[in-house]
Amino acid sequence: MKKAVILLSGGLDSATCVAIAKSQGFEVIALSFDYGQRHNAELAAARRVAEAFGVTDHRVLRLDLGTIGGSALTDTSIAVPTQDHDGETAGIPVTYVPARNTVFLSFALGLAEVVEADDIFIGVNAVDYSGYPDCRPEFIAAFEQVANLATKAGVEGHRMHIHTPLIALSKADIIRTGLTLGVDYGLTVSCYQADIDGRACGVCDSCRLRRKGFADAGVADPTRYQ
Amino acid sequence: MKKAVILLSGGLDSATCVAIAKSQGFEVIALSFDYGQRHNAELAAARRVAEAFGVTDHRVLRLDLGTIGGSALTDTSIAVPTQDHDGETAGIPVTYVPARNTVFLSFALGLAEVVEADDIFIGVNAVDYSGYPDCRPEFIAAFEQVANLATKAGVEGHRMHIHTPLIALSKADIIRTGLTLGVDYGLTVSCYQADIDGRACGVCDSCRLRRKGFADAGVADPTRYQ
Repeated sequence: MKKAVILLSGGLDSATCVAIAKSQGFEVIALSFDYGQRHNAELAAARRVAEAFGVTDHRVLRLDLGTIGGSALTDTSIAVPTQDHDGETAGIPVTYVPARNTVFLSFALGLAEVVEADDIFIGVNAVDYSGYPDCRPEFIAAFEQVANLATKAGVEGHRMHIHTPLIALSKADIIRTGLTLGVDYGLTVSCYQADIDGRACGVCDSCRLRRKGFADAGVADPTRYQ
Repeated sequence: MKKAVILLSGGLDSATCVAIAKSQGFEVIALSFDYGQRHNAELAAARRVAEAFGVTDHRVLRLDLGTIGGSALTDTSIAVPTQDHDGETAGIPVTYVPARNTVFLSFALGLAEVVEADDIFIGVNAVDYSGYPDCRPEFIAAFEQVANLATKAGVEGHRMHIHTPLIALSKADIIRTGLTLGVDYGLTVSCYQADIDGRACGVCDSCRLRRKGFADAGVADPTRYQ
């Protein structure tokens, strides 16, 4: 059974990624990060999602992105915005964590080498996204190149693949896909400032994208709000 | 004054990088990692080197590469080899830490964004090296591409540069360069299994490359051996 390392935040997108990878026949190794994010309820959600999909190898890697700072998600002196913005045209929001996807993919790459997986899944999305540069397809393509040069894979002649099954889907399409694959979105937490029980604020960018996704998909929103 | 983030391990190569960046007029922000490496005496060496060069912003980021495992440098169940090998042709040694330079460069990239530096220095070397795939020029070029797509730099239209001033130098040439720039190599620790006081084993790959470098350069070896 071929293995895949999946970046699992506990949010809606990464939960859908797990379902897709399972449906494609991969044995899933899940990797989550405890990086001083405000919305630590995500990690509890990640554990629930991993359990729901029978993922037995779920690693939580602790790292202190706060040492680097620069984001409302890790630096409590920066407020999480709750006003509308228009994605890329409005500039990069303060919730952007510097180089986050690069850091996360790097660890996924290291883990993939150790468990001998050639496949990595990340739930980035370039449609209903928050204007982060490291969600773009050209970034993923460049990282795949790095993955093949950085590791034994490149030397040994097999290829590493970065899978982004959600990259071209709307939030509504992601939700529809996940529902057909048995994702229980009630287990997931997307909010940037969820409370300790995983209840969502309903007003941050991530909440609004998620809420709109359920509305557009025409399905009931199972999110628990504060 | 233009800023540069420098990956500072406390070894001979990264100390030389600091000296080179300073000589090129950069304000140096140093970044070290406490990643469960056996040779933790390196971190003390990194602090000494930063101090010697008047680096006031030196960050030490803690991360648990041990969660990922797979290397003799972070997994105590794998022995550090002390026999000769012939670099690339002998395969990748067990001291290889999976995706280490990718992980380290990713954090350097995040820090560079936060401190508004467009320049990152890493002391990789493709001549007298240990057969690690992530020390090759093609890896660095691919990572530079990632750096420019992952970050605000790419969106804002300025370029990030990954500097590898040592990549084509022999160990002897690195030492000669450093000595002309005032590096005190007695402050540095290269050994994979240095003791708590920073005394080197003298027999691991890293010790042997370093010892040969001083011999080839025709200068006294200031390394303190066990």
